[in-house]
Amino acid sequence: MTEILSAATRGPLLDPLFSAGWKEVDGRDAIEKTFVFDSFVDAFGWMTRAAIWAEKWDHHPEWSNTYNKVKVVLTTHDVGGLSALDAKLARKMESLL
Amino acid sequence: MTEILSAATRGPLLDPLFSAGWKEVDGRDAIEKTFVFDSFVDAFGWMTRAAIWAEKWDHHPEWSNTYNKVKVVLTTHDVGGLSALDAKLARKMESLL
Repeated sequence: MTEILSAATRGPLLDPLFSAGWKEVDGRDAIEKTFVFDSFVDAFGWMTRAAIWAEKWDHHPEWSNTYNKVKVVLTTHDVGGLSALDAKLARKMESLL
Repeated sequence: MTEILSAATRGPLLDPLFSAGWKEVDGRDAIEKTFVFDSFVDAFGWMTRAAIWAEKWDHHPEWSNTYNKVKVVLTTHDVGGLSALDAKLARKMESLL
């Protein structure tokens, strides 16, 4: 059962992501990061790997791509804010770099 | 040599795209369309096919994806507006549906 992150779980799950360059989105219970790659092929290749995990976990990002940049926003629409799934997908995205 | 679309070429190249649901972007010499698919797999699969053509032609979209929706903006940064490449990529995106 997906639940919104409790006060107690936010720090342990989110602090490592903030250290990795993620930040809170203004006005939404969501996190975002802009990834910069060497080329479009690198950027879209990374998106493709992340897309497969997103589909496997049935948890999809909001993301935009312009050439070598990919901006990702993660939140859990079902619970109206951040859940452990967002932290899990963010960690996976980092590991796929 | 890529050139900005002349007044004479705009109609023939852009009108068929406007008929297919593309529209001008407010305040920019660019065109946009939001594509809606049945699923994330369909949306991202289409993006992947379009991405290969974009790279092949060295002409890349600005695009964003949220689950089954893909919003595409096309313009030619090198010329500061729309060129024949944008119409070509838009037509390819339509043919890949």
